[in-house]
Amino acid sequence: MAEISTYNYRIEPQDVDFTLRASASSIINYMLNVAGVDADKKGFGVERLQNKSCTWVLSRLGVEIIAQAEQYSPIELDTWVNEFNRLSSTRNFRMRLGDNLLAAGVSQWCMINMETRSVVDMSLLRETYEEAMVDTPSPIAAPARLRPTEPTTTTSRPVAYSDIDFNRHVNTLRYVDMVFDAIPLELIERNAGMRIDFNFIAEARYGETLTVGSSAEGNIYQFEISSDGKTLCRARVEFK
Amino acid sequence: MAEISTYNYRIEPQDVDFTLRASASSIINYMLNVAGVDADKKGFGVERLQNKSCTWVLSRLGVEIIAQAEQYSPIELDTWVNEFNRLSSTRNFRMRLGDNLLAAGVSQWCMINMETRSVVDMSLLRETYEEAMVDTPSPIAAPARLRPTEPTTTTSRPVAYSDIDFNRHVNTLRYVDMVFDAIPLELIERNAGMRIDFNFIAEARYGETLTVGSSAEGNIYQFEISSDGKTLCRARVEFK
Repeated sequence: MAEISTYNYRIEPQDVDFTLRASASSIINYMLNVAGVDADKKGFGVERLQNKSCTWVLSRLGVEIIAQAEQYSPIELDTWVNEFNRLSSTRNFRMRLGDNLLAAGVSQWCMINMETRSVVDMSLLRETYEEAMVDTPSPIAAPARLRPTEPTTTTSRPVAYSDIDFNRHVNTLRYVDMVFDAIPLELIERNAGMRIDFNFIAEARYGETLTVGSSAEGNIYQFEISSDGKTLCRARVEFK
Repeated sequence: MAEISTYNYRIEPQDVDFTLRASASSIINYMLNVAGVDADKKGFGVERLQNKSCTWVLSRLGVEIIAQAEQYSPIELDTWVNEFNRLSSTRNFRMRLGDNLLAAGVSQWCMINMETRSVVDMSLLRETYEEAMVDTPSPIAAPARLRPTEPTTTTSRPVAYSDIDFNRHVNTLRYVDMVFDAIPLELIERNAGMRIDFNFIAEARYGETLTVGSSAEGNIYQFEISSDGKTLCRARVEFK
């Protein structure tokens, strides 16, 4: 058993949107970065896995944003792993400004073989993992399982250089950007809080064309991002 | 007279491209961030100017990249102002990994009135500025003045939420992304060095549609970004 780890950051100019507060995309970026740094520190980071030809893949993510921190705010990020089985590992996040909770997140990860891109049994990490587990429940409900939706609006664009990671796949944060780019600016400007759920289903490569489908019902926005008929990612954003 | 100031950063996961090295866009981001931080420290930052209803606008930028730093590299950024007249101020940059020069930049700024968006005489900052000047020449040639070009390829897309800054204008870094998204991946992958010149001419707002026109001749790529026939920005990238 281990304790919750805390990392310090500062909201930088590139993290803020037109309201001068951290965008949802940059809040998720901080969570994913801290996941990488903490996994590394605990002995199951990407570099360690590469020796076994494996890597981490984010499968689902749930985030609740209470308030978006202002530019240059000194934020603290708590992170801990509290579930682990053969196929999935759960990592939690809290973003704080002092004692004020700004956002919380729950992420589910699986391990894949880098060559075959198929899921790997994580039992090989059991010992390292058991030492790193923290006996603290997730701060919010687990990421929702999102069902197919019927988009009422669609836009398309090719995958570009600035979208891709070292596997030449579209970076997770670009999906977040695409989702928020399809939401009316007024809802983001209100900063009244939101719940975000993402299901990452398949990977898109450089050269493919992404189609972002969206539909809205009241304060709930749903998204289906696909490439050539293949669903890559589903998302749901509910504004408070 | 003052001394060159140095700031420490680390290349974070969101700064690297598919080669796991800092993208040109993130190198420019570090330069622009350090410009903001240093101007603030020297008494002529954006917050100080806001009291006078003024703000800084980047008019031209020249950057030479020798090598793109790898993820997690601890980099140092030197910055200094060495020219200043009524209409323009010149700020210089060096990005280093220890004693190794990775990149250098020269930026030219003007001051505008936030309501009228017209250029303001900078004489009102003369005293503060004279104290902050550093007697060290620019590390590379001044930004080139770019003339109109005839694009052979064009793409268009609307300005989105993730593009805009607090004035609801397209963020400078998005122009850099658009330029590099239009360059063949192989040239970027070689990491053999490049010279980049940008001229920022007009601002684009949320709701407008951006058109990126490009043409290539050997290792030189030229760009003309416009909205509704109005030129917003010109760029030139020469690969070594």
